[in-house]
Amino acid sequence: MASFDGPKFKMTDGSYVQTKAVDVGSSTDISPYLSLIREDSILNGNRAVIFDVYWDVGFLKTENKKSSWSLSSVKLSTKNLCLLLRLPNPFHDNLKDLYRFFASKFVTFVGVQIEEDLILLRENHGLVIRNAIEVGKLAAKALGTLVLEYLGTRELAHRVLWSDLSRLDSIESKWEEKSPEERLEAAAIEGWLISSVWDQLNE
Amino acid sequence: MASFDGPKFKMTDGSYVQTKAVDVGSSTDISPYLSLIREDSILNGNRAVIFDVYWDVGFLKTENKKSSWSLSSVKLSTKNLCLLLRLPNPFHDNLKDLYRFFASKFVTFVGVQIEEDLILLRENHGLVIRNAIEVGKLAAKALGTLVLEYLGTRELAHRVLWSDLSRLDSIESKWEEKSPEERLEAAAIEGWLISSVWDQLNE
Amino acid sequence: MASFDGPKFKMTDGSYVQTKAVDVGSSTDISPYLSLIREDSILNGNRAVIFDVYWDVGFLKTENKKSSWSLSSVKLSTKNLCLLLRLPNPFHDNLKDLYRFFASKFVTFVGVQIEEDLILLRENHGLVIRNAIEVGKLAAKALGTLVLEYLGTRELAHRVLWSDLSRLDSIESKWEEKSPEERLEAAAIEGWLISSVWDQLNE
Amino acid sequence: MASFDGPKFKMTDGSYVQTKAVDVGSSTDISPYLSLIREDSILNGNRAVIFDVYWDVGFLKTENKKSSWSLSSVKLSTKNLCLLLRLPNPFHDNLKDLYRFFASKFVTFVGVQIEEDLILLRENHGLVIRNAIEVGKLAAKALGTLVLEYLGTRELAHRVLWSDLSRLDSIESKWEEKSPEERLEAAAIEGWLISSVWDQLNE
Amino acid sequence: MASFDGPKFKMTDGSYVQTKAVDVGSSTDISPYLSLIREDSILNGNRAVIFDVYWDVGFLKTENKKSSWSLSSVKLSTKNLCLLLRLPNPFHDNLKDLYRFFASKFVTFVGVQIEEDLILLRENHGLVIRNAIEVGKLAAKALGTLVLEYLGTRELAHRVLWSDLSRLDSIESKWEEKSPEERLEAAAIEGWLISSVWDQLNE
Amino acid sequence: MASFDGPKFKMTDGSYVQTKAVDVGSSTDISPYLSLIREDSILNGNRAVIFDVYWDVGFLKTENKKSSWSLSSVKLSTKNLCLLLRLPNPFHDNLKDLYRFFASKFVTFVGVQIEEDLILLRENHGLVIRNAIEVGKLAAKALGTLVLEYLGTRELAHRVLWSDLSRLDSIESKWEEKSPEERLEAAAIEGWLISSVWDQLNE
Repeated sequence: MASFDGPKFKMTDGSYVQTKAVDVGSSTDISPYLSLIREDSILNGNRAVIFDVYWDVGFLKTENKKSSWSLSSVKLSTKNLCLLLRLPNPFHDNLKDLYRFFASKFVTFVGVQIEEDLILLRENHGLVIRNAIEVGKLAAKALGTLVLEYLGTRELAHRVLWSDLSRLDSIESKWEEKSPEERLEAAAIEGWLISSVWDQLNE
Repeated sequence: MASFDGPKFKMTDGSYVQTKAVDVGSSTDISPYLSLIREDSILNGNRAVIFDVYWDVGFLKTENKKSSWSLSSVKLSTKNLCLLLRLPNPFHDNLKDLYRFFASKFVTFVGVQIEEDLILLRENHGLVIRNAIEVGKLAAKALGTLVLEYLGTRELAHRVLWSDLSRLDSIESKWEEKSPEERLEAAAIEGWLISSVWDQLNE
Repeated sequence: MASFDGPKFKMTDGSYVQTKAVDVGSSTDISPYLSLIREDSILNGNRAVIFDVYWDVGFLKTENKKSSWSLSSVKLSTKNLCLLLRLPNPFHDNLKDLYRFFASKFVTFVGVQIEEDLILLRENHGLVIRNAIEVGKLAAKALGTLVLEYLGTRELAHRVLWSDLSRLDSIESKWEEKSPEERLEAAAIEGWLISSVWDQLNE
Repeated sequence: MASFDGPKFKMTDGSYVQTKAVDVGSSTDISPYLSLIREDSILNGNRAVIFDVYWDVGFLKTENKKSSWSLSSVKLSTKNLCLLLRLPNPFHDNLKDLYRFFASKFVTFVGVQIEEDLILLRENHGLVIRNAIEVGKLAAKALGTLVLEYLGTRELAHRVLWSDLSRLDSIESKWEEKSPEERLEAAAIEGWLISSVWDQLNE
Repeated sequence: MASFDGPKFKMTDGSYVQTKAVDVGSSTDISPYLSLIREDSILNGNRAVIFDVYWDVGFLKTENKKSSWSLSSVKLSTKNLCLLLRLPNPFHDNLKDLYRFFASKFVTFVGVQIEEDLILLRENHGLVIRNAIEVGKLAAKALGTLVLEYLGTRELAHRVLWSDLSRLDSIESKWEEKSPEERLEAAAIEGWLISSVWDQLNE
Repeated sequence: MASFDGPKFKMTDGSYVQTKAVDVGSSTDISPYLSLIREDSILNGNRAVIFDVYWDVGFLKTENKKSSWSLSSVKLSTKNLCLLLRLPNPFHDNLKDLYRFFASKFVTFVGVQIEEDLILLRENHGLVIRNAIEVGKLAAKALGTLVLEYLGTRELAHRVLWSDLSRLDSIESKWEEKSPEERLEAAAIEGWLISSVWDQLNE
């Protein structure tokens, strides 16, 4: 049965985030993991799912070395869970579950600096997120601090939460030297941070 | 004769919503149902029709696995009625009635997070809603609460109405395990909630 | 000679609207009717012409059942007159008079929820209205009531005029069962209502 | 020598507008008239040239009776002069003078409800007005009266100037029955009115 | 050696503007002149370069007499210098220097009513100005006078500087009768005026 | 091992900026330099990377001498480091590292007058910066000084920091006569200035 049996990471408030990294093959059934994320989001998380997407860049031989972007991974987080899906190229039919999940209006998809991502998702993959929100833009308006709109996850969390971010900094500043587990930890921390920012904005 | 003879669901204020789910075949006459929705909207509902649309995603074989979206279902609600139309693919000529209904200016079509839907409806199906409103955007402006613009149905209703949403949560959190009737109940609840939000905004 | 010799309808303030419905054939001369509308608009109506357009939808055989929209009727109203033009398909050369009329800057063309209509008119028929106004948008700003921007004719009139709308409701709620004359009456009432809203906004 | 030797019309303040209507043939030299307009604009008129454009509509045989718009006349006015150019179809090389005149930044081109015109001029004729202003929009902002943005020339002048407009109304309400000279008078009055509105806004 | 050895014109404050008009042939080296403009802009002029562009219009034989625009001249000004480049058609490779100059971020390119120009430059010539500013728009906001956004150079300078503009008026009102040197003087005056407006806005 | 072993320049506050200029060949590994920039940005610089891009313009033989833009150099700065990458044409596969770096959300990419650059990067090279900010626009809003939005680096720094900019002016005013090292110094100063402006805005 599907479960978040990857490493568990401790956050700065003492809570834990359970993680799961999945290499999605042509026969991998990702829907149980997505259901768990949605369930936790509905029951414990204000119906918010924090998301981030990662891209592969390729140079096309033709057309003067133009680049092409394809979705390589997707991160989906709640306050308690963090799911990392590593996607195949090209996509298999089982990824329709991911398309349906992103198109759902049951939850709000919360991200940081996602404007370009939403365009690339639509244009390169026909993937549509109907209920997405740029959390920095909302924070900037809600808190009256203009610069929040333009920051990355870490700085945004720093300004809104003032929590200790040294663990995240230590991983991301030496990213190339870090192990996959440490990278997963950084992903989990970032998801948890935005989840906390969202809670703060909704209070 | 056409009537809403599907299951009847009790809402949190004690009122009932009568439902009807129709599998639209090539000879199904949907216009009587649409007329009943319009009539109830005009006589009892501030001329508002709550709508939601559901999509099927398919991967095109050609063009590097790009996706295609086609309309699979449409939900139309008033305070008292909820109509769920399951659509065939491709469309038959009898769906012109649905196109005409959506193009009508007799009523206002009220939805949540419909921006992407309106684009997809126009681009993929040439379906135009002339008088549509994103209720969250209006609520955000009218109530001065920015975040309302970005929420899904449940959270929007929660902030505006403060009613008990446990039944909806219990269905939607375990969506895959639920029966068609329970899913129809969730659809009816969501339609009724937005109808109530709309009333609240119009007071 | 051209005259508005169709049925005359009594409005709620005791005044009458004279109507004329014209089936436009290839040899119908519509310009006298348009001239009468313009004359009444200039002499008695703040140079406003209330308009509404009605569409036929067709499914194209090719291209996966995409729909096509073509203009089937046009309604032009002043406080005293209501002209309903039923248009042929395809258009004949005599419809150039209608194109010229709509392009005129002598009057302001006032409509409700016309954004989609203006796009369809331009894209599908190359018809341009140079001086058009969305009355709900103006009412929302002028009266400081956000929701007015998103309402249909009846609700807009209800909020601005508070007049008795039961006759309109009784026709439109049972639209399919109504006679052509009753439908013309509803069209005349709607035109008169928007004309009254416009007067109110201009006071 | 070029001169404004057409009929002279008396305005409501007792001043006169000198007019000239030119049927532009392939060998007509319009530049002297344009120079006189520019000179009067610079020396007596705040460097404003009031303009209006008139269109011919044609139905294309192909493509399902789509319409095409071509520029048939141009009106250029100052406080003292009114030039009406009736243009040939297709354009001759001598119309380059008109293109250059419209592209000039020496003067500001002031019009009413010109948004659609500017698009049609650019798309259908490649004609660019670099320094154009929609006077109603400016009036609406400057005077704080929203509705001014949406009015035609007559109503705009009525609200800003409160001058007697009965002569204009009497011509335009019976347009079809009027002589070319009366129509030229209406054109001259409209140009003079906007010129007066512009002066008012610049005080 | 390159120098601004054209006529010198006296401005209304007693200062002089040195000019240079260059007919750019295939072997003309324009970079020394551009360097002098940049140097003066950096050392004496708040790093602002005032620019204006002039267009040739041609009618294409094909496509129903559509027009084409090509850049014929460019004016670059500082408080002390005015450079007029008359460009060949088609462009030679030595014009790359002009492209690089316009793409520079060392200075701010200040113009009046340049919106259409920027579009034409990009679309017709692929010329990009990365740091351009519409001075009238800025003046309108900074000084709180709406109409400034829509004026030409002379009127804008008139409202901001209140200096004597009779010399400029006398040249531009009789433009066709003026000598090349007088036209150059008008160009120099306009450049100097906008330079002064810019200084005013930066105080 | 990769290190910033180029010339070291003294800033006006006594601190030093270490530089590195790299001619990127087909086998150059640029990732260690990018990692050092990111590390310094994370540990010492508010996660901001100041960037600027430089373009080569070419005239296409075909299509009437239209121009084409290709990216020739990229500058990446923090408070302590300045990296100048001179890029080959066409790009080699090792430039994917640069694409990934620019797509990163770990840091915020801060630039001046970058709107046109972002368009050219996307259209001509498919390069996407997901988290970019136009610092002048932010400064204009945050400090309430409209003109800041439209200035180049030097003027922006001048208004915000009031530091001594004579060294920068002396290099940039005589750009053509300057050595590569002096040009690198100007690049380092500009990067440091914007980094200081950013700090100021974040205080």
